[in-house]
Amino acid sequence: MTDITTWIDEYHKGSRFGLNGKILFKKTSKYQEIIVIENEYYGKALMLDGCWMTSLKDEKYYHECLVHPALSSIDEKSNVLIIGGGDGGTVRECVKYSKISKIDLVEIDEEVIKISKKFLKEIAGEAWNDKRLEIHIDDGVKWVEKTKDNFYDVIFIDCSDPSEFSNLLFSHSFYKECERILAPSGILATQSESPESFKNIHINILKSLKNIFKVSETMYSFVPIYPSGIWSWTFASSEDLSLSKQNYDEVVKIEKGCEIWNLNFQNAAFKMMPNKIVKELDS
Amino acid sequence: MTDITTWIDEYHKGSRFGLNGKILFKKTSKYQEIIVIENEYYGKALMLDGCWMTSLKDEKYYHECLVHPALSSIDEKSNVLIIGGGDGGTVRECVKYSKISKIDLVEIDEEVIKISKKFLKEIAGEAWNDKRLEIHIDDGVKWVEKTKDNFYDVIFIDCSDPSEFSNLLFSHSFYKECERILAPSGILATQSESPESFKNIHINILKSLKNIFKVSETMYSFVPIYPSGIWSWTFASSEDLSLSKQNYDEVVKIEKGCEIWNLNFQNAAFKMMPNKIVKELDS
Repeated sequence: MTDITTWIDEYHKGSRFGLNGKILFKKTSKYQEIIVIENEYYGKALMLDGCWMTSLKDEKYYHECLVHPALSSIDEKSNVLIIGGGDGGTVRECVKYSKISKIDLVEIDEEVIKISKKFLKEIAGEAWNDKRLEIHIDDGVKWVEKTKDNFYDVIFIDCSDPSEFSNLLFSHSFYKECERILAPSGILATQSESPESFKNIHINILKSLKNIFKVSETMYSFVPIYPSGIWSWTFASSEDLSLSKQNYDEVVKIEKGCEIWNLNFQNAAFKMMPNKIVKELDS
Repeated sequence: MTDITTWIDEYHKGSRFGLNGKILFKKTSKYQEIIVIENEYYGKALMLDGCWMTSLKDEKYYHECLVHPALSSIDEKSNVLIIGGGDGGTVRECVKYSKISKIDLVEIDEEVIKISKKFLKEIAGEAWNDKRLEIHIDDGVKWVEKTKDNFYDVIFIDCSDPSEFSNLLFSHSFYKECERILAPSGILATQSESPESFKNIHINILKSLKNIFKVSETMYSFVPIYPSGIWSWTFASSEDLSLSKQNYDEVVKIEKGCEIWNLNFQNAAFKMMPNKIVKELDS
């Protein structure tokens, strides 16, 4: 790679968001095109198949919101499954919790993990070496299908936007399977796209999860490099969700180390549904 | 203008956000370059001096959050001042309130109003003809200086990012003058930039207003076409703020017509300060 800087853009419905910088890595894996660029403001940033996935500067907006609402409520030894999440950010937030006994990270594309460990090591750092972590290069849908009932306490779906090879991760049948492999009080935590840029997908996710689980709640916050900058995460359970009610002492310590998330922020974010989405869900 | 589509980008610290479309208008006024483009997703969009100001698709994210937290609390006949706001979106939200007796819109650049009335008439529409509205082509800083004490009940600062000719609208001395011309229970409502993309300016605004007014509260929400997509609005008063506590019946009616804002959303948005800003203000 050379020292020449260039613009790399994500295109979305006639708009584009681009970062300028030096390309550190560019290769097409078995599944997707992978680019790592070094940008003046966002730092190193990862693009998969033309979509920005994460950057050193803004990744905490995403990972803290996916992980803490689910994990801050656990109060017993817990088995965690991460589907996707090859950049390691979700793992890093998970290993902060002492109650977690096991983390299975199931990533379909081994290259994403290799590239993240090499070029984006600031994201997960030492978390990659946590003894509770086991990495499986496998298809998340198949992994869930072959898992026995009630096996996990928390499942994180940390995947890219719907595409040919990730579509099933947004399907009703897949969510049903997740419910099957979750313990009765287990929590499914999934990124649920943008209510602005992916409105129909967003609403479908919410409706599917409401249909399958007893409780399902959506929080809205910011991810600067994603289309529209508005993002959402949905948490579903077959028992009442009591997010962040237990495990308070450890949570307060973790909160101090967070850049975006704190308990007040979380409670508010669950009420930030734009009025047009409220109306569409009510209709 | 031709039928050829082109990309128009806002550049910000090594990133860019661009819209593709047909350019409907492009001219440099006495103060700034003005561009109107027609985009497939965002509809018609206005750019001033290289910065996206508003678009038909996303303008309600901005205008509803600037106006309703301030006006939903008024319960007596009120005089309103809007500084900037030449696209008319703030006027449109204001005229929904029956308690407003007078709106002075003070815009420095007459061209922005002309262009908005011609190319972006979907934004303000009939609100431009509201009998309570008086438009003044003048410098907002000078307007405030020549206004007598306690004259306005609500002041909206609806301006672009700090620049050569708008810098003073973010200054301590200007906020002091606003406080002077506000009635004792009056409210200053200002856009207060992005806590991500304009962090230092954002923090300076918050500190200035806390210093001058008895109460100052900041809400965080989304504006898709602004840098980072995270935006903030700050509301300050020399008496206790009781946002949205009065005037409930009219507010509930107005809420129904809103795309983004509702009372729940508002209450939450005031607690969405990212943890890194909390820490920086505490330090």
